[in-house]
Amino acid sequence: MKKFAFALHGGAGTILKSAMTPEKEKAYRNALSQALSAGESILKHGGSAIDAVEKAVIEMENSALFNAGYGSVFTHDISHELDASIMDGNGRRAGAVAGIKRIKNPISLCRKIMDKSEHVFLLAEGAEAFAREEGEELVPESYYSTDSRKEQLLKIRDSLKTQLDHADDQLKKFGTVGAVALDTAGNLGAATSTGGITNKRFSRVGDTAIIGSGTYAENGVCAISSTGWGEYFIRCVAAYEVAALMKYGKMSIEDAAGKLINETIPEMGGDGGVIGVDQGGNITMPFNTEGMYRAKVDSESGPQIYIYR
Amino acid sequence: MKKFAFALHGGAGTILKSAMTPEKEKAYRNALSQALSAGESILKHGGSAIDAVEKAVIEMENSALFNAGYGSVFTHDISHELDASIMDGNGRRAGAVAGIKRIKNPISLCRKIMDKSEHVFLLAEGAEAFAREEGEELVPESYYSTDSRKEQLLKIRDSLKTQLDHADDQLKKFGTVGAVALDTAGNLGAATSTGGITNKRFSRVGDTAIIGSGTYAENGVCAISSTGWGEYFIRCVAAYEVAALMKYGKMSIEDAAGKLINETIPEMGGDGGVIGVDQGGNITMPFNTEGMYRAKVDSESGPQIYIYR
Repeated sequence: MKKFAFALHGGAGTILKSAMTPEKEKAYRNALSQALSAGESILKHGGSAIDAVEKAVIEMENSALFNAGYGSVFTHDISHELDASIMDGNGRRAGAVAGIKRIKNPISLCRKIMDKSEHVFLLAEGAEAFAREEGEELVPESYYSTDSRKEQLLKIRDSLKTQLDHADDQLKKFGTVGAVALDTAGNLGAATSTGGITNKRFSRVGDTAIIGSGTYAENGVCAISSTGWGEYFIRCVAAYEVAALMKYGKMSIEDAAGKLINETIPEMGGDGGVIGVDQGGNITMPFNTEGMYRAKVDSESGPQIYIYR
Repeated sequence: MKKFAFALHGGAGTILKSAMTPEKEKAYRNALSQALSAGESILKHGGSAIDAVEKAVIEMENSALFNAGYGSVFTHDISHELDASIMDGNGRRAGAVAGIKRIKNPISLCRKIMDKSEHVFLLAEGAEAFAREEGEELVPESYYSTDSRKEQLLKIRDSLKTQLDHADDQLKKFGTVGAVALDTAGNLGAATSTGGITNKRFSRVGDTAIIGSGTYAENGVCAISSTGWGEYFIRCVAAYEVAALMKYGKMSIEDAAGKLINETIPEMGGDGGVIGVDQGGNITMPFNTEGMYRAKVDSESGPQIYIYR
């Protein structure tokens, strides 16, 4: 039984070692390490799981490397629409947003919705109006406009004209960030945030905004954050599926998350990964893609950071 | 084992017999009966569960009596924002929309998203742009503006100024419509649609748009449609909870839905109801409110329509 445990991900997908430079890999490892120690530092000083997952996700939202917050990908219309959700295992309270265009840290807005409103899920301008009433400063939409993401969009938009298969492959590069934690008081928490998929149209929302699919936390069971092909994660209610297999199927978190990622999701035709922690502080981080940016730490072992299988 | 089975709801909530006139009750019974026979007629001629649930929800969306489609309640800004979702148990395919302002039948847009796009969940204007590309005609927002709903809004807005508790009570009158079906080919389907809550702000979305909370269908297990205080249904992943209790907890649909509605939801502080059908054609319709507009029919028994406990 660990006193605290903490894990995070920066997205699963086609992360090929052959396409990675040593400099880029170092930058990712540094960013993961920084987010990990932000969460760890809260937990080892007796802070709450929900504070730790929020803080770690804020760190990743503020980095240009991950597809969330500042580093969010562009939509087809050269715009941005961000999704996020958070859940406190203590009381199963939750907050979620979708279609966000003007909030620096969508995960903190989720936290405010959870703590200060009677609602769980707010959309787009409505969510931003709530943020304004809560005194939050809105950022201009250009805040998210990094050059590398715009380049990605233009490349995909061009290739879509001539080469559909290739474009499909590009769309599958999942970028999502997330964190799960067990704190020293025995509370579980989970948080997930994303910029969606490059070149997306029609205000498509994936699993990241959906409590039960992208994010779930319940004291006594587990905390889960998903990353992957969102449509499949919605259709199999991915995050809660892990909890249900544990609660009613009496599975360990490792077996439950493994079944989801190695059987259910691929059998439906999807792919991706999850991170999870249970009430005993056991961490699992399965994925069925080439790689998943991920890191973990607990009260008994030091930080561990991984990218590939 | 029934050849087909069909059930629908027109919302759970504070439906007091003392506040109901004989004329009003007759109008509700007629509307429920019409929607029921629209679905039944498809199923008894060998049509699909997904066609039956879509058709029955369209009937209710087109009625001024239910809070969905034409009869949708007003938001705080004297506007409308509709949510809906549909799921085919055959392949666990799904479609969902939130924040809709210009679609006559949101449930049919969900069906189109499920059948014709690679996505599951589209928002607001994005979903409407997809509808336009699919050749669907958009309605002016005034289409949903019925006098009785505007009167409800103005009454609540006024009372909010002076009497918060009373207003809270009013907000709890849940209006949602939904249907579940088992067809003669053994496929299950579920659909749910709503105008949300009167006087809502910040583009709040409840469980109706959420696959796993408002709607869920999986062949071999069950089809579920929820109605109730949406925030609680999201936080306990209500629709999938019933399926999980059946799949992994080996419960009957009656026990699983009963546990959700009589234990889990009220223990969290919420209320509402669900309708469900399992692979054997067993229908359950539990609720913990004063009443729930509901009806059912199957290959062995004629139509049955209920309002109160």
